[in-house]
Amino acid sequence: MKIPGKIAITTPVFFLILFLLNISSFKMTEQKIENPVNTEEHIKIAQLIVQTALRERKGYEYLRELCKIGPRLSGSETSLKAINWAYEKMKSLGFDSVWLQPVMVPHWKRGNVASCNIVGVNKKLSILALGGSIATSPEGITAELIEVKSFEELSDRKHEVKGKIVFYSRGLDQSQLNTFTAYGGAIKFRTQGAIEAAKYGASGVLIKSLTTKYDNNPHTGVMSYVDSIPKIPVAALGFLDAELLSQELKQNPHLKINLKLNCETLPDAKSFNVIGEIKGTEYPDEIILVGGHFDSWDVGDGAHDDGAGCMMTLEVLDLMKRLDIKLKRTLRCVLFINEENGTRGAIEYANYALTSPQIHFVVIEADRGAFTPIGFYAETDSTEILNKLQNWLPILENANIEWIRKGGSGVDIQKIKNARLRLGYVPDDQRYMDIHHSANDVFEEVHPREFELGAAAISIMAYLLSEEGL
Amino acid sequence: MKIPGKIAITTPVFFLILFLLNISSFKMTEQKIENPVNTEEHIKIAQLIVQTALRERKGYEYLRELCKIGPRLSGSETSLKAINWAYEKMKSLGFDSVWLQPVMVPHWKRGNVASCNIVGVNKKLSILALGGSIATSPEGITAELIEVKSFEELSDRKHEVKGKIVFYSRGLDQSQLNTFTAYGGAIKFRTQGAIEAAKYGASGVLIKSLTTKYDNNPHTGVMSYVDSIPKIPVAALGFLDAELLSQELKQNPHLKINLKLNCETLPDAKSFNVIGEIKGTEYPDEIILVGGHFDSWDVGDGAHDDGAGCMMTLEVLDLMKRLDIKLKRTLRCVLFINEENGTRGAIEYANYALTSPQIHFVVIEADRGAFTPIGFYAETDSTEILNKLQNWLPILENANIEWIRKGGSGVDIQKIKNARLRLGYVPDDQRYMDIHHSANDVFEEVHPREFELGAAAISIMAYLLSEEGL
Repeated sequence: MKIPGKIAITTPVFFLILFLLNISSFKMTEQKIENPVNTEEHIKIAQLIVQTALRERKGYEYLRELCKIGPRLSGSETSLKAINWAYEKMKSLGFDSVWLQPVMVPHWKRGNVASCNIVGVNKKLSILALGGSIATSPEGITAELIEVKSFEELSDRKHEVKGKIVFYSRGLDQSQLNTFTAYGGAIKFRTQGAIEAAKYGASGVLIKSLTTKYDNNPHTGVMSYVDSIPKIPVAALGFLDAELLSQELKQNPHLKINLKLNCETLPDAKSFNVIGEIKGTEYPDEIILVGGHFDSWDVGDGAHDDGAGCMMTLEVLDLMKRLDIKLKRTLRCVLFINEENGTRGAIEYANYALTSPQIHFVVIEADRGAFTPIGFYAETDSTEILNKLQNWLPILENANIEWIRKGGSGVDIQKIKNARLRLGYVPDDQRYMDIHHSANDVFEEVHPREFELGAAAISIMAYLLSEEGL
Repeated sequence: MKIPGKIAITTPVFFLILFLLNISSFKMTEQKIENPVNTEEHIKIAQLIVQTALRERKGYEYLRELCKIGPRLSGSETSLKAINWAYEKMKSLGFDSVWLQPVMVPHWKRGNVASCNIVGVNKKLSILALGGSIATSPEGITAELIEVKSFEELSDRKHEVKGKIVFYSRGLDQSQLNTFTAYGGAIKFRTQGAIEAAKYGASGVLIKSLTTKYDNNPHTGVMSYVDSIPKIPVAALGFLDAELLSQELKQNPHLKINLKLNCETLPDAKSFNVIGEIKGTEYPDEIILVGGHFDSWDVGDGAHDDGAGCMMTLEVLDLMKRLDIKLKRTLRCVLFINEENGTRGAIEYANYALTSPQIHFVVIEADRGAFTPIGFYAETDSTEILNKLQNWLPILENANIEWIRKGGSGVDIQKIKNARLRLGYVPDDQRYMDIHHSANDVFEEVHPREFELGAAAISIMAYLLSEEGL
């Protein structure tokens, strides 16, 4: 083969070379492992974490214990029992420090009346008041319905609304691949539906449950009022009864329903974030925070939402203890109270973080259920940080982590503005909206392996962040 | 900025450029889309397929119908009823051709006796005969046990085996990330356990169920005998009772059990593969085959294994009909009979494929359950083909396909040696071994969205293979 000693190179070729160099260096950055020796060591630790979690299923058993206490709506008696249980659990596991951070939380009670009958027909519809709704009068609201699929349709028909119950029958767009996207496209009917309907004189609101499951367990969730517009009662209909009601309205547009709710908002109640930590050996003032929200809705067990996030992140610390892995940075688990209807716990913690002399190095939230892990969202604009995290994929894939992408982290940790990086743990989402905010969200719906892989994935991420830094 | 008109370039730099060009062209091949216009068009079609599948959930409803018929063990009456149902279903959906391919299959019957008692204790253990096992005498085998965790341990203790029942108590290694890997590490006790035990004079065999679920439903599956070694009865113990038996043996190593089975192998029975197809518009003699195995074990519904694979691939053709997508190549769905205990259907079809003038262009099997899609295994050594398939990931990701990797395809289609390419559909595996070959494998364990995404993923792959070729 003849090899040229020198080649004349023209301007376009020069740019081509620059371009190719660029592509290559970009690809190299994405794929290279900065320190192959460490990577091998890290993979061993990662595998040890995964194997231990899968074999022992301890966090899963902690979740079972937690779910037995009852649901954990902010201000409720069972939420305080659960807070005490979590505090004692962290102590018993031997964390270096465990404490409660007091915070006043909203105290809404569902009451014991929630009925919705089609007048003149022996048909009770399955409903749940939305969180924050006012009560009806004891005899309830008896009114015709106006069914709409959008706020635009409501506005177009505003002259028909007065005195009626607005029925938002859109529900989730079932054809969406990602169920959080589907949820995002419909949540406004739950959060803003009462305000929009009351603007035009409606007497109440029903929404089709935001669910991917075609059953009849209604899905609750927080709703809003504004002081300038009358407050009207709001409830979610079970998916099947919402479908049935739509059918009935086609037959008889003037049918009336009677809606009764006796929920009430009590004065704010004292509650707590539960916090436990293991001190770092080299940088004890740099915090890797992992956590979820400890409150839940008052139906089901709050197992996936977000008992699982709490127990997975609690197990992160527990796994380090069980495996005697001593991290350079301090590993802190925070169980935030009141994410569902106020985020008071998150606000309290964020204020504390802002004034604390400690550095909130990285904060990680798990609040998307405990299904099979797939990735992490990184709330950052830094491609350098993203690349660094992506370099760890060969280590993280031992816990089934397929990707790290730019994306939202979590409702609680978003408030910790002085954290260097916020990460959201992302498991598979196909089943999540089946159970979310409903009686379906029970311990039995959590799969032990999926849960434990989540605990392992977050553990490995926390371990790498602590040992490798950013 | 000053731009050089000409640059002198030395030999090492020349090689550097060649190297970079190489890296770049390699990267480009991996990631580029050959025809961007087509890709956009393909993504539209892919999204249409996904949205339609998720919205309509039709294949999922076909699976519900199928599961109502009963389990489909080869040779059983319900398997023939189900074959007839599938044939009529394909006809009713308007496929161009639908036919049955006759084949003789093994006909093993479980019988109605399966008991396992600890002698002298009022404790019945939960068991299922393994598929193919012989019966015990009517009074059963009463014998001591020898518990082993490996064939090596059995061989080391061969002088203790005579007359005893060998108890393989290893089960799955629960610490494995991938449950198929865990299964692969333990399946030999089920398939070879009787042969190894009988070599040393054992009277029977019990194995701990190959499961990731800590319940008491035993998991069956095929086992083997060889003519040169005595045949002894074999059964699987429920996971919890296997654990209990290990505990009891620690207390009392000489405890005896009484094992009774009355299974029998009848003469081979007539059965059928069910085949339906839609003719290609340009290359009708080039076949894209999709399918699963239609037989199941005789406990549960055979819902995930492999009713789901059959109904997902049947829905591939149905989706093309519903969406009026006319493919260039012929799309054929084959429901193979007898994968579980003989693969006679696969052998029959493979022989037919070998002598058929038609080209088996690509064959795709779905036999790993109907959980959330994650990838496809391609049984190929061609990096060119792998790259081509990987180029389609931006299209396939609309059905949640994250990767295409080299790997095994499926037990049935592996026999079709003259296919240009064999692909295996890969969903998430964390829950699969919970249900596999047990009474847990019922329709209710199949999630409609996960199922439909599988149907959509295979549809998109079949569509791309047909329209783009290889």
